[in-house]
Amino acid sequence: MQPDLTDGTTGILFTDQYQLTMAQLYFDQGLHTRRARFEMFFREYPDYGEHQAGYCIAAGLEPLLEWMEGLRFTEDDLAAIAAQRTGAGERRFRDEFLEWLRHAGDMTAIHVDAVAEGRVVHPHVPMVVVDGPLAIAQMLETAIINHISYPTLVATKASRVQEAGRGRPVLEFGLRRGPGWGANAGARAALVGGCDFTSNVGVSQALGLDPKGTHAHSMVQVFMAVGGGEREAFRAYAASYPDECILLVDTIDTLASGVPNAISVFEELRAAGHDPRGIRLDSGDLAFLAVQSARMLDEAGFPQVQIVLSSNLDELAMWQILSQIEVEAPRYGVSPESVVRRLAYGVGTRLITSHGDSALGGVYKLVAVADAGGDLQPAIKVSDSPEKVPVPGVKQVWRVYDRRGIATADVIGVAGESPFDGAVRLAHPHRTGVGRVLHGVEVSLVEELLEPAFRDGGRTRPAPNLEDMRRRRHVDLERLDPGVRRLVNPHIYHVSLTEQMRDLREHLVAAAAR
Amino acid sequence: MQPDLTDGTTGILFTDQYQLTMAQLYFDQGLHTRRARFEMFFREYPDYGEHQAGYCIAAGLEPLLEWMEGLRFTEDDLAAIAAQRTGAGERRFRDEFLEWLRHAGDMTAIHVDAVAEGRVVHPHVPMVVVDGPLAIAQMLETAIINHISYPTLVATKASRVQEAGRGRPVLEFGLRRGPGWGANAGARAALVGGCDFTSNVGVSQALGLDPKGTHAHSMVQVFMAVGGGEREAFRAYAASYPDECILLVDTIDTLASGVPNAISVFEELRAAGHDPRGIRLDSGDLAFLAVQSARMLDEAGFPQVQIVLSSNLDELAMWQILSQIEVEAPRYGVSPESVVRRLAYGVGTRLITSHGDSALGGVYKLVAVADAGGDLQPAIKVSDSPEKVPVPGVKQVWRVYDRRGIATADVIGVAGESPFDGAVRLAHPHRTGVGRVLHGVEVSLVEELLEPAFRDGGRTRPAPNLEDMRRRRHVDLERLDPGVRRLVNPHIYHVSLTEQMRDLREHLVAAAAR
Repeated sequence: MQPDLTDGTTGILFTDQYQLTMAQLYFDQGLHTRRARFEMFFREYPDYGEHQAGYCIAAGLEPLLEWMEGLRFTEDDLAAIAAQRTGAGERRFRDEFLEWLRHAGDMTAIHVDAVAEGRVVHPHVPMVVVDGPLAIAQMLETAIINHISYPTLVATKASRVQEAGRGRPVLEFGLRRGPGWGANAGARAALVGGCDFTSNVGVSQALGLDPKGTHAHSMVQVFMAVGGGEREAFRAYAASYPDECILLVDTIDTLASGVPNAISVFEELRAAGHDPRGIRLDSGDLAFLAVQSARMLDEAGFPQVQIVLSSNLDELAMWQILSQIEVEAPRYGVSPESVVRRLAYGVGTRLITSHGDSALGGVYKLVAVADAGGDLQPAIKVSDSPEKVPVPGVKQVWRVYDRRGIATADVIGVAGESPFDGAVRLAHPHRTGVGRVLHGVEVSLVEELLEPAFRDGGRTRPAPNLEDMRRRRHVDLERLDPGVRRLVNPHIYHVSLTEQMRDLREHLVAAAAR
Repeated sequence: MQPDLTDGTTGILFTDQYQLTMAQLYFDQGLHTRRARFEMFFREYPDYGEHQAGYCIAAGLEPLLEWMEGLRFTEDDLAAIAAQRTGAGERRFRDEFLEWLRHAGDMTAIHVDAVAEGRVVHPHVPMVVVDGPLAIAQMLETAIINHISYPTLVATKASRVQEAGRGRPVLEFGLRRGPGWGANAGARAALVGGCDFTSNVGVSQALGLDPKGTHAHSMVQVFMAVGGGEREAFRAYAASYPDECILLVDTIDTLASGVPNAISVFEELRAAGHDPRGIRLDSGDLAFLAVQSARMLDEAGFPQVQIVLSSNLDELAMWQILSQIEVEAPRYGVSPESVVRRLAYGVGTRLITSHGDSALGGVYKLVAVADAGGDLQPAIKVSDSPEKVPVPGVKQVWRVYDRRGIATADVIGVAGESPFDGAVRLAHPHRTGVGRVLHGVEVSLVEELLEPAFRDGGRTRPAPNLEDMRRRRHVDLERLDPGVRRLVNPHIYHVSLTEQMRDLREHLVAAAAR
């Protein structure tokens, strides 16, 4: 999934114009090589309206690092910039600046620390920290926010969908409704976040997964148009795919035609020594149809045949369908468990667009700039909204686990401090006077969240594979309080500042206001 | 903006697995080269919740055609497919089928007719019609829906934003919050649909536009951190860009610091013989701040300086802000017109994610398949929902203009019929017995909407440039009833069937139900 870096739209010019104008200004002022530090984070969990996330799953880091490797201004990029003219008809970008970009406009001086992909993340905690020459580190802003925000949004929703599915398989089906080429990033993020498979062939093969999919309504239509019908279509499918026969049963009438035709073909398959695999329901009242289909399949002697549900599913719809099955199945003499244990879910549009909240709101904020002597000094941005005042300076970020091994807080401190020697007083990130005291005896583990990711123009380690990233999510979810994992009205996870960090920020805000 | 077709994720495997399994099934059944016809369309206008679209702007066609040119199964693609295994451990795709893909798995037999990019489009009217060998035409489904739906969604919102801006400049700022590489398609669509410029450097340069952008809050922060302040930052900006100085004034305090500092630097610029260009407001109460800033700039002798508004804008927010300015400006002794005429708008997240409705719901439906003799026969899909029963068969689509030159209906008829010779009876697409009669004397123009776009593996004509596409939108909007163009509660535009088409569909539905 390597983009073509020679294309002017996916290389280093995949950025906003103001990054370039600021870079030249820093050059003009002799500030361009000053060491600077930026942090990418998000401020709020996705809020889908009727339901809300209480955690996010980090995603997008590895494609970002892959993009950064070898990234530089090509001669085509430089020629394009050189051609820009101001309203007064003059060159906007001057030769000295372009010459500097030509020899220094690359990633060799950029350091990145980051939270590993697949991990649980929370608001205000830096996910990606960039350290390097001011002009270069600033220019990366747009691409970093872009590469991390959308995948994190989709991975988060995928995680919720996976939890709503209670361990049954979840398939990502969003390619057609996804946002252009971004649909590939969405499919990948869905796989990191909790989907088992995707229908996206290219992404599956890039990640070493088996792509999933059987047939569409149009296949049944074709057989009807050439003089056959649904049963002939199903029979043709079984002939081509006898060992993985999953039939879409809602083209004509699910219970009157689709399921009976499927059962008839399944009987033929079984007689020929094959195990029929499943049916798919893609419209209508999925809870009712799942119960009735399960009953019909059971009565026909196919209790193992899977029922794949699709059509506008997301975590909330799945939760509702499962609740309906639990309440309604017994009325038809069907055990709810026997239905639920055979379900699988195809989740498309609502996952890949993060239905209900389609932007994470990632930001990238300057937190430190070197003084003339080269020492990093914390930078602040004031705002009328306390939650928009970033946490300044070079910092450390820890995740603290309680005696049960459950994560109890993410703590942001000043670089070099060691707050966990005894009792540690934690401050609310925005509300004055709100805090809590964490006694050493309550803490089972303190873990650093940020890891070195990129040095000297390349990754610090090979790209993790999909299983590594999924394992991280699994481990982190197991260590998250069930209240925080709720689909609706989750508990609030604590993100806190050390007292030293709180004092630093208050001091800088007061100084800026003078 | 050519994707790298050798990448397994952006070539012909940018598709769903079921397209491949169906293709092999058609091959197994000897149906793969049967001529078939599919149509891509959408069923509903975007509904943003508090507001609704009454028309859409077609976008995405040219990138789709560019992608299709030269598209085929590469040896890498074939090797990847050949490696797929069934649950029983056998090859899923067999050699004969792969061999057929190797020599016939390309676009040379595919014909496409389409509605030109930039045109106004409505639900149920085919935007892209694909005709060719069943297996190939089917495989294109996923990529066609993907390429058209998201750009059409963004172009539609951009058009609404442009209308809300009352002719003042609109700038697309969404790259960072956009969906991965899809953000490039989003920026392009925004430019087709109504935005004047974008901050996206790569897309601007690919389209021959000047990218727009000045500086971020972080630039002011840098100057504060190295011992200067907002005025030093502004002065540095003016020094680097004296003829296009637009200053972001809300880093510290808009009215107490930002605007006075900007005015002071503007005075220096003017004294040096340059015209200051503008200020940007990116937070807070934009209506109030715009009025106060305008007043301060007027009093300082800068009535021509532009005020760029940004921060969570979309068509509804812009409409509200303009209403507030009209009501509130007079209270401060400011003429609303003098504020509004100097505004420009930066629109980011909410445009590129189509806030409120982030999927168009495009579909691609089989409408005809050849019989054994090679003659196309109409195909139908039945559904419990009448609006989900597609319009079958080979068809013609006309847009009909009334005597004022205003579009009065899109009419879908059977290929070969000539319904406009006299009075034409139009049927509602889904509601039985609802229709209207259009008398010849009421009609000033009947226009065919679908144009040949792709033949024999290539486009039928050179790609139009951005200005061509924007001109189409402009012409179409001028010919659209103002009620249909409303931002909220738009009038319903008529999409109708000819009587002959209505009868064909009813006949096929009745036959399928037997």
